[in-house]
Amino acid sequence: MKMTSLQDLYLHTLKDIYYAEQQILKALPGMAEKASDAGLRQAFTDHVAETQGQIERLEQIFSMLGERAKGETCPAIEGILKESKELMSDLKDPDALDAGMIAAAQAVEHYEFTRYGTLASWARTLGHTEAVPLLEASRDEEIGADVKLTKLAEAWVNRQAAAA
Amino acid sequence: MKMTSLQDLYLHTLKDIYYAEQQILKALPGMAEKASDAGLRQAFTDHVAETQGQIERLEQIFSMLGERAKGETCPAIEGILKESKELMSDLKDPDALDAGMIAAAQAVEHYEFTRYGTLASWARTLGHTEAVPLLEASRDEEIGADVKLTKLAEAWVNRQAAAA
Repeated sequence: MKMTSLQDLYLHTLKDIYYAEQQILKALPGMAEKASDAGLRQAFTDHVAETQGQIERLEQIFSMLGERAKGETCPAIEGILKESKELMSDLKDPDALDAGMIAAAQAVEHYEFTRYGTLASWARTLGHTEAVPLLEASRDEEIGADVKLTKLAEAWVNRQAAAA
Repeated sequence: MKMTSLQDLYLHTLKDIYYAEQQILKALPGMAEKASDAGLRQAFTDHVAETQGQIERLEQIFSMLGERAKGETCPAIEGILKESKELMSDLKDPDALDAGMIAAAQAVEHYEFTRYGTLASWARTLGHTEAVPLLEASRDEEIGADVKLTKLAEAWVNRQAAAA
């Protein structure tokens, strides 16, 4: 895709994160199924609904721009999720796998966090002010999900994994 | 690589970020060269030295573990840097490219930020207390680099790109 302006880059990045969210939506049930810790399983399950909400927000933003909601392959999320799948196949201890899946999910959340932050900043600069609160709401959900996983890891999962 | 414990996962993740840092070190000069904004060019150039310091810290940690410093292919960083390279080839407007390269660099920094945070947490849990301040120092540098790029984008680069 050839781009010549910040507006083109904004639209391209919306398509990139739209694709990313759909890949995350596909990956989450498998991660929930593999989780041994009940709190972690619940966190992955809760994030499915959050991800669906984030996809809907993006669809609203595409519609505001008069564009069809469409994904565009996002090599970053493919790489991040590939690492998660490799862990799920290579890591035999269930407690260490919980710790690894938390780390993988946090890498996903940080990717979304930075992308939504960038998009909100570009939307503001480009005068798409109606998109800003939607993008910031998704960014803040990702920050919240990351904090929740850090607490889960540090309260319990890491120690459980170290003791295994 | 088959892993059976949190210790294995810790070592695997050290190799993953060691590989990632080396890829970043290779990518930064090209990004600095493509940057039009002098402040951005300087930020990329400054980050070369920071990245070298982060690689040295990782080498100290491998040595503390009695392990040879060795990278292991990290699909996440490959995906993140692939996006950056695609931008550099597809985005024709130099000001929009600056905005895009800032976003790409922030995705890299967020990946490192979460990985170093996870590694510090695992090091603490596993009793590798001497590694914790080294990992936290690299994490804090990444947070600092991210904040610096946000300021640069919001003070100048985004508006310049939107006006182009």
